[in-house]
Amino acid sequence: MSDGTLARRSLLKSLPLLAAGAAMMGSTSESVAAETPENERAPVTYLPVSAQKQFFSNKEAIKGKAYESFFNPKLEVPTADALALQLGPLDKADCLTPSVADLNRLIDPAYKSPKQGYAVLEGSTAYVQNRMVFPGATAEMLRWWFTWHPIERERYMLWFPQAHIENSVKDPARLANKNLSYEDRIYDNPNYVKELVGPAPMELLIRFTDPAKLGFDAGAFKRAGFTANASGIVGPAQATDVINSMMIHIGRDVDGGMELVSRYWIGAHPELRRFAGAEKAAGMMQKVGFNDQVAEMTAYELAVHDMIEFNHLASILPALYERFGQE
Amino acid sequence: MSDGTLARRSLLKSLPLLAAGAAMMGSTSESVAAETPENERAPVTYLPVSAQKQFFSNKEAIKGKAYESFFNPKLEVPTADALALQLGPLDKADCLTPSVADLNRLIDPAYKSPKQGYAVLEGSTAYVQNRMVFPGATAEMLRWWFTWHPIERERYMLWFPQAHIENSVKDPARLANKNLSYEDRIYDNPNYVKELVGPAPMELLIRFTDPAKLGFDAGAFKRAGFTANASGIVGPAQATDVINSMMIHIGRDVDGGMELVSRYWIGAHPELRRFAGAEKAAGMMQKVGFNDQVAEMTAYELAVHDMIEFNHLASILPALYERFGQE
Repeated sequence: MSDGTLARRSLLKSLPLLAAGAAMMGSTSESVAAETPENERAPVTYLPVSAQKQFFSNKEAIKGKAYESFFNPKLEVPTADALALQLGPLDKADCLTPSVADLNRLIDPAYKSPKQGYAVLEGSTAYVQNRMVFPGATAEMLRWWFTWHPIERERYMLWFPQAHIENSVKDPARLANKNLSYEDRIYDNPNYVKELVGPAPMELLIRFTDPAKLGFDAGAFKRAGFTANASGIVGPAQATDVINSMMIHIGRDVDGGMELVSRYWIGAHPELRRFAGAEKAAGMMQKVGFNDQVAEMTAYELAVHDMIEFNHLASILPALYERFGQE
Repeated sequence: MSDGTLARRSLLKSLPLLAAGAAMMGSTSESVAAETPENERAPVTYLPVSAQKQFFSNKEAIKGKAYESFFNPKLEVPTADALALQLGPLDKADCLTPSVADLNRLIDPAYKSPKQGYAVLEGSTAYVQNRMVFPGATAEMLRWWFTWHPIERERYMLWFPQAHIENSVKDPARLANKNLSYEDRIYDNPNYVKELVGPAPMELLIRFTDPAKLGFDAGAFKRAGFTANASGIVGPAQATDVINSMMIHIGRDVDGGMELVSRYWIGAHPELRRFAGAEKAAGMMQKVGFNDQVAEMTAYELAVHDMIEFNHLASILPALYERFGQE
């Protein structure tokens, strides 16, 4: 990512947008995004070959499962979101770092940011942000989803039928134990996932973690109304002593549904070093060639992946919970 | 591409498709494609980072050109086409080779094939097919386009504002000479192009060639009504003694517009060896690691590129010709 790109983007953002309904010709890509009605949805028009093939294999795997009818190949995303992600990386001023201070900015009622976007931050860190509402869903449904789906890999496939491959948890009995609290079921119970991000498979170990241990102020978190948390620190599944990512997924009930706020940082960002293992990230990322350019492509691919999978989950979650929520 | 994938695809194709309007849940990806109305169009939901950046640079380059108002960032494709390309590679029985016999099958009125698709053929050859109608356009407009746009690189950018980078022709004066026939202007007048196919830049030298020299029967070509030809043999711009591709773009006037029929073969297909330089393709492709897997990804990326660029050209060509057709 060059400063030139950022400068161009800032310049473009400062230009007055054409009025909605302006003639097709002469519109800018920013005006196309801005003119798109907020509720317009588009079918996903691009799917890497590896994901095309994964779909057929997942379709076989899920046959006969009680939830097979929820395996829906139809991927749709908000048109405005897909177009906004095509405007190049975010201005750095619109990004958060993984610092404790920035985590608390995220839940500050005064905090404003673009709905979604991607960028490269310090330490060749791929950064993604997103904020969306699941219509007709609740934070309780999201909590249920994160205790229910890792029990079987085929449940994980419902979430993104073309890109989700494997999923397991260290102690499935504890995750499934309804006599325990959500926190006791999911924290310190590492979740292995294998998924295609863009065309490439990623194998990750997700450590879901209490928000306070990540750096959120517990009181502020509660006051902001967040009651669902699927945030964690993450590293490659092949090197379990290395932490190179933090992922934030926090949910709260709002008018009309559940609001999900997400952030991802993948790289050797210095602010991750408060987590044991993150001191090894820089060496590992350098060894695999994860430079700024790779980070930028990864950030965009992850932003697209996140947009697809959470819009897809939103489209099935209320009905899935209705049918299996007591399991 | 494994035989297993092809077998799965054949199997799926033989299953009865769900009726249009079936419940969202339980539909297959093939039924989603089949249920989509033919005239439904979708915004392109994915654009590689390199193309996002190229757009801003092209937007600067085109400023002040008489045709700047035709530089339209809004990319739309037929929804059914985008979804059909996500079903995996075509069955080989649905593909044509670059042989003389298959070129003549292509213009045989009895020939039927899927509207578009991609595959890998012999010699790790990336294969793409497409057939579409430009509403309100004529074959004459397409002929004009291929004599007009290579004169300035910025004209080439109109065609795909996010992916077209450079364009020039060996003898621009001859290409622009309206006292010569189309054939005398464009044949034996190599066209250099640089464009992003997927995320990667390709630099090619296109030799537009008389259909009869490619292998079409001239009488059959005329009887089938084709009056526009922008077909040619193609090689890397960096190695002008090597031919590793053939590209077919032939157009004819039909009810409502112009029908464009396209085919691409990129690789060391043995049937290309009738063209001098193609005997060097196998060695070169092997050197750059162009195996079956790379060919398959290239074929899908090229299919997406072709779908976007020709739908985009269709959206501007009649008005562009109206304004500049006498140049």
